[in-house]
Amino acid sequence: MQDAQIIKTRDLEFQLFEVLEAETLTQRARHADHSRETFNAALETAHAVAVEKFAPHNRLSDEHEPQFDGQRVSIPHEVKDALDALRATGFLAAGKDYELGGMQLPAVISFACLSLFKSANIATSSYAMLTSANANVIERFGSETQKRKYLGALLEGRAFGTMALTEPQAGSSLSDLTTSATPNAHGTYSLRGNKIFISGGDHELSENIVHLVLARIPGGPPGVKGISLFTVPKFRVNDDGSLGARNDVALAGLIHKMGWRGTTSTMLSFGEHGECIGELVGEPHHGLAYMFHMMNEARIGVGLGAVMLGYRGYLASLDYARERPQGRHPTNKNPLDPQLPLIEHADVRRMLLAQKAYVEGAYALCLYAARLVDEQNTGESDAARAEAALLLDLLTPIVKSWPSQWCLEANSLAIQIHGGYGYTREYPVEQFYRDNRLNMIHEGTHGIQALDLLGRKVTMKQGAALKLFSRELQRTIDAAREQEPLKLHADALAAAWRDVTSTLEALLPTLASDAELALANANAFLEAFGHVVLAWTWLRQALVAHAALPRANGAADQDFYRGKLHACQWFFRCELPRVAAMLAPLRTLDDTTLSMSPQWF
Amino acid sequence: MQDAQIIKTRDLEFQLFEVLEAETLTQRARHADHSRETFNAALETAHAVAVEKFAPHNRLSDEHEPQFDGQRVSIPHEVKDALDALRATGFLAAGKDYELGGMQLPAVISFACLSLFKSANIATSSYAMLTSANANVIERFGSETQKRKYLGALLEGRAFGTMALTEPQAGSSLSDLTTSATPNAHGTYSLRGNKIFISGGDHELSENIVHLVLARIPGGPPGVKGISLFTVPKFRVNDDGSLGARNDVALAGLIHKMGWRGTTSTMLSFGEHGECIGELVGEPHHGLAYMFHMMNEARIGVGLGAVMLGYRGYLASLDYARERPQGRHPTNKNPLDPQLPLIEHADVRRMLLAQKAYVEGAYALCLYAARLVDEQNTGESDAARAEAALLLDLLTPIVKSWPSQWCLEANSLAIQIHGGYGYTREYPVEQFYRDNRLNMIHEGTHGIQALDLLGRKVTMKQGAALKLFSRELQRTIDAAREQEPLKLHADALAAAWRDVTSTLEALLPTLASDAELALANANAFLEAFGHVVLAWTWLRQALVAHAALPRANGAADQDFYRGKLHACQWFFRCELPRVAAMLAPLRTLDDTTLSMSPQWF
Repeated sequence: MQDAQIIKTRDLEFQLFEVLEAETLTQRARHADHSRETFNAALETAHAVAVEKFAPHNRLSDEHEPQFDGQRVSIPHEVKDALDALRATGFLAAGKDYELGGMQLPAVISFACLSLFKSANIATSSYAMLTSANANVIERFGSETQKRKYLGALLEGRAFGTMALTEPQAGSSLSDLTTSATPNAHGTYSLRGNKIFISGGDHELSENIVHLVLARIPGGPPGVKGISLFTVPKFRVNDDGSLGARNDVALAGLIHKMGWRGTTSTMLSFGEHGECIGELVGEPHHGLAYMFHMMNEARIGVGLGAVMLGYRGYLASLDYARERPQGRHPTNKNPLDPQLPLIEHADVRRMLLAQKAYVEGAYALCLYAARLVDEQNTGESDAARAEAALLLDLLTPIVKSWPSQWCLEANSLAIQIHGGYGYTREYPVEQFYRDNRLNMIHEGTHGIQALDLLGRKVTMKQGAALKLFSRELQRTIDAAREQEPLKLHADALAAAWRDVTSTLEALLPTLASDAELALANANAFLEAFGHVVLAWTWLRQALVAHAALPRANGAADQDFYRGKLHACQWFFRCELPRVAAMLAPLRTLDDTTLSMSPQWF
Repeated sequence: MQDAQIIKTRDLEFQLFEVLEAETLTQRARHADHSRETFNAALETAHAVAVEKFAPHNRLSDEHEPQFDGQRVSIPHEVKDALDALRATGFLAAGKDYELGGMQLPAVISFACLSLFKSANIATSSYAMLTSANANVIERFGSETQKRKYLGALLEGRAFGTMALTEPQAGSSLSDLTTSATPNAHGTYSLRGNKIFISGGDHELSENIVHLVLARIPGGPPGVKGISLFTVPKFRVNDDGSLGARNDVALAGLIHKMGWRGTTSTMLSFGEHGECIGELVGEPHHGLAYMFHMMNEARIGVGLGAVMLGYRGYLASLDYARERPQGRHPTNKNPLDPQLPLIEHADVRRMLLAQKAYVEGAYALCLYAARLVDEQNTGESDAARAEAALLLDLLTPIVKSWPSQWCLEANSLAIQIHGGYGYTREYPVEQFYRDNRLNMIHEGTHGIQALDLLGRKVTMKQGAALKLFSRELQRTIDAAREQEPLKLHADALAAAWRDVTSTLEALLPTLASDAELALANANAFLEAFGHVVLAWTWLRQALVAHAALPRANGAADQDFYRGKLHACQWFFRCELPRVAAMLAPLRTLDDTTLSMSPQWF
């Protein structure tokens, strides 16, 4: 019953080549060797590996989660087989320089490839995603020695990476980290402390594991200003690249989760039983900034993972709704008529449309964010690169949080369409729902994204990022106003954006004078802004679909474009009207949460 | 780490004795032997058994779900121990006549007792709930012989009951049931067919199992008009009450679910290998009406179960938020200050307030529904009894659906407050979330409740039920307008209700002329009406709390009433404003779902 349909390829093609015009990137020097054909070849390879090696064990590794016998972690061999296949494709270095063994693919194509692995098997693909993120940090901030020892191994997948931030007593409060790193002779450091929720923290899927660890050098400033970043390998690496002695990074225990069970989640202790040697990355006390460099891409990755779980559920429930006969129209009381497929029921179509609107809208957003990474890296002027970086900074909290919330809701609808069957483990949708629930938590909770957005991003550089987004939004609105069937949507989006910006303007003085009160409803702002951003991604898609429809290539293509226009309409009619209510507590500076005394609960 | 706090007892007392004035029921003849003290004694006994026998194995029976070795179903013995303890209390017959061994407790007290078992362990309590529902049908519609053979055994818990409706090929479409019941000599019937998702369908927790089975007598009319109801025991029962031969009800397999794992969910085959004897309940072809009698109470039970899962999560996350230090206020950048408990953060308080508003509001609704059952049974005039029945009929879709949706959302917030820990199986909240996801599906899906409400309930008897609800709502609004701090809420509720009723009035002609179109957005109506009903339950609670506050008995009581007023405020400021957007597709007769062609997905 497992459905291995991991993507609607026509949609992927639409997003990449019609909406985001990824082919134009081949005009840039870095990607000059590439073409639509090489992009497609990469996508096809990723698709094949994802379908053949990642998807088949998605349920298996949920049912057989990693086991720790006190000595080693055992994981079903299918996980290693899949990662071996991934290694062989070279995707771990997809965007890297040729000289590093990379393919110099644009970020938008790399992320699209990654999305296929995520869709096929979110847990197994996590090892790859963490490894890429880790390699990015070492490439950007590591010393030549660190690069020589670790970068090649990570990009080839001989070593896998982790991000070791969280500690049991500190959770989201990185300011309260206590792991220490004491300087040794020879420039290395001895680490000591405990980390929790470290994904991929121990396993035998790769020869080595490179942990990127946040820790304090004694004598440094308190709080986040005294945090440094270290590379801490599981096995020390000799100068010739060969593996040396075991470093004292010990697995203190595995964590058993509701979902996402295929990824080892660990408690690690550093230097508790012996010598745990690490090397400083970059300057002392700048660790958080380096880690955030990694985290920003990780946050796009989380958003994309949430989308793909939603997408899988959508496709599975669409298949089910087409095939399962069930009931008749409410006005037909004749039991002798044959039952209709579920998809004939308006409420089932509502649940399919909602899923389509959530997942395809959020997919458009994540790929747009990846496209911004390309602009940031290879944009045609300093100004263009700076603008892209700014816009990406503003949108990252939405890219991370919106799919985590709404593509989870999509997974719930996919269960609902399956009825009782959807609640059973014989069908795949309940697993997607369990897996997806993590995404609102890791890489910065929803609450933290909300504070980041309202407390920092919208006001940074005198609101420059917000103005930039406003300009982009306006361009879309202006273009849509030229197209009769999209005019009403354009007006609705303009009105919703006015609501958001006027609410924000009224809030600005309070943000300055009483941040506690202004930020009390930060979550409402995150949700309202997010809905506007998603409406915008839909209007962008609708513009392309509307222009393409008259010259569509056959009935299937016409259906595809009509579906895009219809899903856009659904979002504008059923979701965008929610923005006003979302903004209500912000407009009134509502203090209900602040004034609720803890004793009153 | 398992938190066994199953209820805020002060809230239970408030709901029963301050809001619903349950003590006044002792003035009625049927409950004349009762008093506040006997009610409390029943509640305390239920609470003790729930905490001591039901709560401790809630995680255990999730981790060790029922196993079928081809011969018998094995279940952890703690489940049977708990049900034995429940049997010993007599709660299976709590509301029944003394002569049946019952306690003649009012429904509102019985449901309150039941809520404690549900909160402690939803899966184990299901066996009891199904048995009570089953006994109700036999008491009401069964023959004297059926009562003699089954009723006593069910009420004493020697036999447990099931509801065997669903078939693999029919799902929600009862019209398409095919199980047959062929008349035999001696007035019995031979059953043949397959059922699926039958909770409690096989086990050894009781001596016998009495299935209530929907089946067709050959030659009857097609569709729902040809469905009859049968008692089908696992072991045939001799005239002297002793157990006879095994009936051919065979376990075809267990179903493995995302949650609610402690309850056996089964596929059953009837008469496939031998003789499966059943007895007709009531008249031929009236089975669905009888079953609906049982289903209506079962739907209150489902709503109540959803509430209690939400309630458990709320209490667990409240404890966690009070005890877990984490971070500082956003304006405090001094890392040397100690960390604050989570509850000091506005966004955490938002998530607690939302949970409180959802679960206590929905608890008020479910207990109100139970109070209507009392009015329906023992109301002081025919008119009062008829009104209560009508109102209950109207509200049942909300009682079933609203908690299923919003108390699940509460469970999600409880996970979120726990952060990464909430996603692990070391804490209880992830299980509540998994368990609760079933409630939108069983006993009539959300979509079916929506069609029932908009397609039937609001227009039945020329809208009499709706008028009745309107009158009750207006009474609350009028009373709240007299109290200065509640005036704004009263106005907001009146406005929201005008929105709902004017939308409905505009929809009525289309309901008559083009039901397909009018019902296409039935789900939106269910949600909007539900939010108004919940706002009403909050305003009712606020009125009582506001009146009680000046004469509150000490600081704890004052805190309690202030908490009620504050949660009401939160619901009115943050939830009620959503109604307008929910109504949007109804007001515009939006046909987006209907006009979406299946090929466009």
